[in-house]
Amino acid sequence: MSRGLFITFEGIDGCGKSTQLNMLKDYLENKGCELLLIREPGGTDIGEKIREVLLSKKSMGMCSITELLLFEAARAQITTEKIKPALAEGKVVICDRFFDSTFAYQGYARGLGSDMVKSLNEIATEGLSPDMTFFLDITVDEALKRRTGRGDAEDRMEAQGLSFQEKVREGYIEASDREDRIIRIDASGTPDEIFAEIKRRVDEKL
Amino acid sequence: MSRGLFITFEGIDGCGKSTQLNMLKDYLENKGCELLLIREPGGTDIGEKIREVLLSKKSMGMCSITELLLFEAARAQITTEKIKPALAEGKVVICDRFFDSTFAYQGYARGLGSDMVKSLNEIATEGLSPDMTFFLDITVDEALKRRTGRGDAEDRMEAQGLSFQEKVREGYIEASDREDRIIRIDASGTPDEIFAEIKRRVDEKL
Repeated sequence: MSRGLFITFEGIDGCGKSTQLNMLKDYLENKGCELLLIREPGGTDIGEKIREVLLSKKSMGMCSITELLLFEAARAQITTEKIKPALAEGKVVICDRFFDSTFAYQGYARGLGSDMVKSLNEIATEGLSPDMTFFLDITVDEALKRRTGRGDAEDRMEAQGLSFQEKVREGYIEASDREDRIIRIDASGTPDEIFAEIKRRVDEKL
Repeated sequence: MSRGLFITFEGIDGCGKSTQLNMLKDYLENKGCELLLIREPGGTDIGEKIREVLLSKKSMGMCSITELLLFEAARAQITTEKIKPALAEGKVVICDRFFDSTFAYQGYARGLGSDMVKSLNEIATEGLSPDMTFFLDITVDEALKRRTGRGDAEDRMEAQGLSFQEKVREGYIEASDREDRIIRIDASGTPDEIFAEIKRRVDEKL
């Protein structure tokens, strides 16, 4: 590859992103691929500090545009500092959330609109887009059961309630209908079933 | 007044903003005006956290677009949470730096360009602009002498060196040539001389 491969994982909390991301990591490492794994909105020292501001329950009074701009600030840093250099070296970059989260959460669920989000995404990434995006789709009820099952403490984003999660899911579905790059995967099955589909799609690109 | 008055102070570090801002505060309080004093990029709990990320020397690897987006995030919060409500109550809002800083520092001195800065300023403020802006103009040498004189520790922005401060000053001069709202004031005089001019201009608006 003259340029690496940029893969992102998207979906509501509890959809199984972390499990699949780790399965893909193990699979690609066994194949000898050089990898960079990244978590938005952190992944850099500066990004982790921004993440703390975003996810702290002390930030409950945060207005929607502030939230959007903070996500984009973290994204600008990680794109410049980590993602672009890794892709230039031919690595596979796997990112836990990227700009489709911003469409779903801020653009769609918070109602800021896709135009503003699109222009900010372009400013933050200077035009970089993932090569493929796995949207792990699951109902809000099922996601809640999984999160409760693993005993996670709620962060500020998760504490927004089920109707908010429902809107986020709708936002993702709309984006995946619009963009070929976004592969909607039924994430209600077992981890192995879900991974079989992801593996098949990634193998086509390698 | 059906709506309050929004006054901002701008200029390179060491130009005397804090002194003049406090003189104006005392003057207006003695006249019985209700005031709100604000410092960008802080001024709200969330903004103060963002300010820490921005000014920390640990953030030396911050890319220019990240910096720009963080300033805009803090601005969005302060505008929604503090400035607009205060203006709606008829208060005089005095702000130590606002979006002209972004033009001068990020748009001009860092070379990100005025179009990107303008569109982000509009997103962050949802169209709000100061009624009058005092640009306290002083040479970089003189500003350095004053800062050294008061024994300030350098923050990350100030540690950029004199040529950066010189560009910031040029950015301010360009903005003040373009916008009637921005009043360029020779800030090389004594505090009382400078304040006489500010007082005269503010009195015209009250």
